[in-house]
Amino acid sequence: MARILRIDMSKLTIRWEDVPAKYEVLGGRGLTSKIVAEEVPPTCNPLGEFNKLVFAPGLLTGTNAPSSGRLSVGSKSPLTGTIKEANAGGVSAQKLANCGIKAIVVEGKADRGCYALYVSKDKTELIAADNCKGLGTYELNKQLRSSYGDRIGVICIGPAGEMMGSNAGISTSDQEGHPGRYAGRGGLGAVMGSKGLKAIIIDSGKPSHLKAKNAEAFKTAARKFTEVLRKHPVTGQALPAYGTAVLVNILNEAGGLPTRNFSSGRFEAAASISGEKIAERVKERGGKGKVGHSCHAGCVIKCSNIYPGPDGNVLCAPIEYETVWSLGANCGIGELDFVARLNYICNDLGLDTIEAGVTLGVAMEAGIVPFGDGDGAIRLLEEVGQGTPLGRVIAQGAAVTGKVFGVTRVPVVKGQGMPAYDPRAVKGIGVTYGTSTMGADHTAGYSVATNILKVGGFVDPLVVEGQAELSRNLQIATAFLDSSGLCLFVAFALLDDSEGLPAVAEMINAQYGFALSVEDLLSLGKEVLRDERSFNKAAGFGPAHDRLPEFFLHEKLPPHDVVFDVSNDDLDSVHGA
Amino acid sequence: MARILRIDMSKLTIRWEDVPAKYEVLGGRGLTSKIVAEEVPPTCNPLGEFNKLVFAPGLLTGTNAPSSGRLSVGSKSPLTGTIKEANAGGVSAQKLANCGIKAIVVEGKADRGCYALYVSKDKTELIAADNCKGLGTYELNKQLRSSYGDRIGVICIGPAGEMMGSNAGISTSDQEGHPGRYAGRGGLGAVMGSKGLKAIIIDSGKPSHLKAKNAEAFKTAARKFTEVLRKHPVTGQALPAYGTAVLVNILNEAGGLPTRNFSSGRFEAAASISGEKIAERVKERGGKGKVGHSCHAGCVIKCSNIYPGPDGNVLCAPIEYETVWSLGANCGIGELDFVARLNYICNDLGLDTIEAGVTLGVAMEAGIVPFGDGDGAIRLLEEVGQGTPLGRVIAQGAAVTGKVFGVTRVPVVKGQGMPAYDPRAVKGIGVTYGTSTMGADHTAGYSVATNILKVGGFVDPLVVEGQAELSRNLQIATAFLDSSGLCLFVAFALLDDSEGLPAVAEMINAQYGFALSVEDLLSLGKEVLRDERSFNKAAGFGPAHDRLPEFFLHEKLPPHDVVFDVSNDDLDSVHGA
Repeated sequence: MARILRIDMSKLTIRWEDVPAKYEVLGGRGLTSKIVAEEVPPTCNPLGEFNKLVFAPGLLTGTNAPSSGRLSVGSKSPLTGTIKEANAGGVSAQKLANCGIKAIVVEGKADRGCYALYVSKDKTELIAADNCKGLGTYELNKQLRSSYGDRIGVICIGPAGEMMGSNAGISTSDQEGHPGRYAGRGGLGAVMGSKGLKAIIIDSGKPSHLKAKNAEAFKTAARKFTEVLRKHPVTGQALPAYGTAVLVNILNEAGGLPTRNFSSGRFEAAASISGEKIAERVKERGGKGKVGHSCHAGCVIKCSNIYPGPDGNVLCAPIEYETVWSLGANCGIGELDFVARLNYICNDLGLDTIEAGVTLGVAMEAGIVPFGDGDGAIRLLEEVGQGTPLGRVIAQGAAVTGKVFGVTRVPVVKGQGMPAYDPRAVKGIGVTYGTSTMGADHTAGYSVATNILKVGGFVDPLVVEGQAELSRNLQIATAFLDSSGLCLFVAFALLDDSEGLPAVAEMINAQYGFALSVEDLLSLGKEVLRDERSFNKAAGFGPAHDRLPEFFLHEKLPPHDVVFDVSNDDLDSVHGA
Repeated sequence: MARILRIDMSKLTIRWEDVPAKYEVLGGRGLTSKIVAEEVPPTCNPLGEFNKLVFAPGLLTGTNAPSSGRLSVGSKSPLTGTIKEANAGGVSAQKLANCGIKAIVVEGKADRGCYALYVSKDKTELIAADNCKGLGTYELNKQLRSSYGDRIGVICIGPAGEMMGSNAGISTSDQEGHPGRYAGRGGLGAVMGSKGLKAIIIDSGKPSHLKAKNAEAFKTAARKFTEVLRKHPVTGQALPAYGTAVLVNILNEAGGLPTRNFSSGRFEAAASISGEKIAERVKERGGKGKVGHSCHAGCVIKCSNIYPGPDGNVLCAPIEYETVWSLGANCGIGELDFVARLNYICNDLGLDTIEAGVTLGVAMEAGIVPFGDGDGAIRLLEEVGQGTPLGRVIAQGAAVTGKVFGVTRVPVVKGQGMPAYDPRAVKGIGVTYGTSTMGADHTAGYSVATNILKVGGFVDPLVVEGQAELSRNLQIATAFLDSSGLCLFVAFALLDDSEGLPAVAEMINAQYGFALSVEDLLSLGKEVLRDERSFNKAAGFGPAHDRLPEFFLHEKLPPHDVVFDVSNDDLDSVHGA
């Protein structure tokens, strides 16, 4: 029976707790948001002793369900001030589940020093880790693997988290030990840093799977679900062949690829940072390069990649759409090698790449370095590592950087930088940016699917009608999926294939002996949103915060020359009163 | 008949407007808050084209009423995000009134360039002022006086406002042309900077007074009011003799003088930065030094001073209680000459001294320079003038500085630094910090009067009971006083002398031919608060924002070892639902 592991960093104690009955049906985001909503005072200082940091594998994580290796991390965010859940792939979530861990709750705050939490099937221990202080995530992972072997999973922060940068993410390692998988958004790495926790080392031994209550039924459902994923063109073809960066040319064509700090929806060098280009480079350069790579065992989508340098060695693994956009198009940088180097630095420092790219775009608008200056961008990120005042500003993300340098075109909602879709040209995602429970977040309700990819039907990205409803439905479905441990990308198939969600329900039911209907799964999603919204309301958030920055309402975006014109009433209708 | 002057900085146009009937009874804060509430979109970017900046002399400003020279400046604040009114003494408000100006509304935003507004009785003109770009306020005032003569009043910003620092104030000149009078709080200088307006030059010619409708009645009332001020021990004796810094020893004795970033309520070197010490230095050093100085003609309180350097020349004029505290005790600096130099630099750069000192305290807690290091503090402020990244952070105030440097003990409410009274030891002022319409502000409801000075009765500063009611009543009375053009310091006498408020009503009635009762004056105060709160609500503020930072609730303040324990319910009762 899985349990909850509670770490008190003030007292440096570890306690195991049974899972309360009401939590049994929860996992991933559903569980992190429930615990945060119940245990964290909504008006607390996110970096103070009363905030908590919760890690939870999803409901299906650790089972044999395909593409189910997600780890949710929840807390009150220092970036947005809202509740936050960020999730990531990599191997750690499966290993936590295999250690019998339903959730880790980190509370309190170490007076001084730097600690690592070691977890195996039969031992948990807080280890003084002052020698790891200030280490980049690559070196830290290398050292930990050399001490604990190659089978460990590592959850950790880089220097950005230690300096409590509001743009510090939490890294999880992949199958090769690269720390490039990030629960990136919302500055949860700063929360981990504030508590004095540098890393969690998960040593679950030989790979294994959690046993299902009804093994046969599970196998049947998992096989059905795998089939659903394999036959959909996005999860079965586009993502394995080109990775997420397959979106670059598509969004550019749609006029929605934010370029040079959201001043155009087309980037003239889009093709040079596209998924097709990544595949071409992998082919040309060979060596360790790879596309169709999976971030954890059992993934059938394999959207990941290993990007090789000119010499065939790993330059960065993986590089994703959001990153080639943020560190590429948004900075006017049209060369993948620069993007990969910037990506690597972000990973090493422990910065979320989306926020980092939005921040660099704002810094470029301020004239600190010119748009398109790859070396200048590298220098700016390196200042973070050096802890200079400028570096510390950059580590705080786009909103603070804009404030400090007097920039008023700052693309953030609730303090969080916007991802790779301009809300003026993809209005459905604009609704999600405004109304998500955690600031500008594309994954919270990925309207791009229906606006651009025509998955789950089609709602014209340039019209206002239908966007609020679309975003609402996707936010509900996503809140459930983020709780299941399934990768959000399964949604492409679920939206188009009516056999998908029933198969998910069947897997969960077979695993736990539940009797959940598809309806029940969506009710779970609704409950997650209710928990999150009620936390946010108590923290001081209301409709006035569900707005996009005013320049999106007044400045026309080329090439379509459109503004964001979804009404406030429409925005407020997403979640109702 | 006074009119409203509307300046459109986008189109660089000037327009005179008649005063709508509903505005006739309004002045100062009542008028600025009314115009901001009616014309500024509450969710707009404070530094964008939709915010407005309103200057308004008070109802009695420009008349012969004693101590009535206040200028109100209103806007949406870039520091707090709330509505904001900051007011200042100096000569500009009287001169504006004498030019027949009820209010100046600055709207839009210049595309480029830097402008000055020239106003006289018969001419108004926007003048290109690119040659003034980057000038400190002292040099700017000197140049303007050499061009326009010594009789002008100057309202201006320094480099901090031009770089849109959220801690940029708006300077007004005094009778000697020193730019040391500040509408300091809330970053209104950044709003002025964002619009491209560097200065307003008011050239009202020979001093004169506005004619009263009923001159005899006015004279009688003004005489009565003067008498009320003269016979009260605070306005008649303490303030003229020692200035506002007479409070240093008093607050230190009460254990409420925040020391070294609010870590103690007593400063061992308090006596060295006290009002008594200022008077002693003036006497010792002679030269241009002076106490009992008045910031504008017709003040009978004369709380101001000119602080001389060792050579008798002006080191800074004036230095006030809040400043000797913020740049002194709060930074652990116990030497007036350092305080005066820091004060001068703030004035010159255009920084609010309260926020600057709170910011330096946070920077010292971060270890950037040690507490007590006067030269280090000077270097930090000089970085603002140099526009370095660190300087730009400092110019953003304490909240941003705390964020950037990972400090969690940051004494701000709604992003604004707390003034010179620790809310744990002076609980009534803590209620005002939490619930004022504009962030941590002492002037919004100066409970210190009744908690510490026993003016207007006595409510024990260390008990919880009665503080909410005290703060409410003072917030209402203050909202009226800030509208009247009277200096807030008249409140000391008004609270104790039942003849005071009737005399104020009589002066207003005689001046305008109104028939307002004392009750009506307080109703005006309530209306101001209603306007401000309704703006704030629409801007997204609610009870969750009316809270003090958590360390005040948990960290005991020596010497009384008290925490801030006024309940949230009490806080929420101040303004009701």
